[in-house]
Amino acid sequence: MTRRRRVYEGKAKVLFEGPEPGTLVQYFKDDATAFNGEKKSTVTGKGVLNNRISEHLMMKLAEIGIQNHFIRRLNMREQLIKEVEIIPVEVIVRNIAAGSICKRLGISEGTPLPRPIIEYCFKSDELNDPLVSEEHITAFGWANPLELDDIMSQSLRVNDFLLGLFTGIGIRLVDFKLEFGRYYEADEMQIILADEISPDNCRLWDIATNKKLDKDRFRRDLGGVEDAYQEVARRLGIIPEGGPGDLQGTTAIQ
Amino acid sequence: MTRRRRVYEGKAKVLFEGPEPGTLVQYFKDDATAFNGEKKSTVTGKGVLNNRISEHLMMKLAEIGIQNHFIRRLNMREQLIKEVEIIPVEVIVRNIAAGSICKRLGISEGTPLPRPIIEYCFKSDELNDPLVSEEHITAFGWANPLELDDIMSQSLRVNDFLLGLFTGIGIRLVDFKLEFGRYYEADEMQIILADEISPDNCRLWDIATNKKLDKDRFRRDLGGVEDAYQEVARRLGIIPEGGPGDLQGTTAIQ
Repeated sequence: MTRRRRVYEGKAKVLFEGPEPGTLVQYFKDDATAFNGEKKSTVTGKGVLNNRISEHLMMKLAEIGIQNHFIRRLNMREQLIKEVEIIPVEVIVRNIAAGSICKRLGISEGTPLPRPIIEYCFKSDELNDPLVSEEHITAFGWANPLELDDIMSQSLRVNDFLLGLFTGIGIRLVDFKLEFGRYYEADEMQIILADEISPDNCRLWDIATNKKLDKDRFRRDLGGVEDAYQEVARRLGIIPEGGPGDLQGTTAIQ
Repeated sequence: MTRRRRVYEGKAKVLFEGPEPGTLVQYFKDDATAFNGEKKSTVTGKGVLNNRISEHLMMKLAEIGIQNHFIRRLNMREQLIKEVEIIPVEVIVRNIAAGSICKRLGISEGTPLPRPIIEYCFKSDELNDPLVSEEHITAFGWANPLELDDIMSQSLRVNDFLLGLFTGIGIRLVDFKLEFGRYYEADEMQIILADEISPDNCRLWDIATNKKLDKDRFRRDLGGVEDAYQEVARRLGIIPEGGPGDLQGTTAIQ
């Protein structure tokens, strides 16, 4: 692997300069963090699984017309993506109350919400990703009202599709986080889905048992983090029913 | 004063059953609280001043077509109001960064905002009035989208008018909090302004000196709370240039 210029390093991923202009290489680390970086560890194989899971979901979403940054997988830990100008807002789609909304609004975990609720957080580690509303986003120019409408309607479509997909494999999609970016091509700007979709940023509960199959296993020290991610990948048909294969990510698979 | 049925007691006001159906008596206390009741004290004369200031502002707003709950002043501490079904959302209108937005979004106090920003908080002492967005308000049915549009456009009109009014008397309207309620009359429902508008829920800075003329004097132990409220009342032309008059509120003034 030749050394490439590191464009950005986040908590779970690294972005490198891509082979052509307008592309990046997204590398998935095994690092796991929670509570804004206060809790840190590594989960062996997580990066390899998230690379595959995110690829799978992004490709399925592209098939229904949700444009996104995924181009193709490069190897076990890397995928080629379109370079976008990230909108500094995390979009959280909630179907069932879990995580921060519970304490904030006094709702018990597991309560179905009256309808899917979209929340926005300003991407700022320093400020601990504070909850913001459309008012803040448009007033501070993080996105304009048209862009935000686009983001909201795309997010609701993603939710509908993923709700169906996960229901089909016995998983309840409790909530998830999306990020969007501006993609420029031939003088046209388009808001497309970026980042990743994986058990790192979705809450996924087994429908039959309510077992958590996501990063909450790490956040809450429930153990079996890697197994849970593998279970999700297995049900999605990404890894075979048998073994997990090489999760060290040392083997190049083209 | 005959004993009336107490309908509701808040931190700074008491609501009693009114003389006719569909009315209430709003009584202004001298109690001052901050930080969700963690800090408590009394400010002599505050209730009397807020009764007069709120009356003055509500009457001026009614003149420009902002319907509100104020009917008439009854005595130094009480006003007759229309009974409304309070929408459990505090509407905060911000022109300049101050208070909670500063820490939350990392903005220095005194920074002019790019445009007036409306924030909503869910009225819940228990949850410490958490910030919510239109999404939460409509999903949980605290108000429907049409009601919320009405609330937002009324709030922006109130802001424009009060910005003008306070500028005229050398005061910068930094931010303020409004509450709205549903008023039912002859099978018609209308969203009207309720609660109070006073230095208890506005941030008011002297334009020349930046001196705070509002409840932040109490919150931050700056002293001279009563003087500041009197200064606001004096500039509004409510109390004469000379003395403050009887602020104990023992004299009935009809």
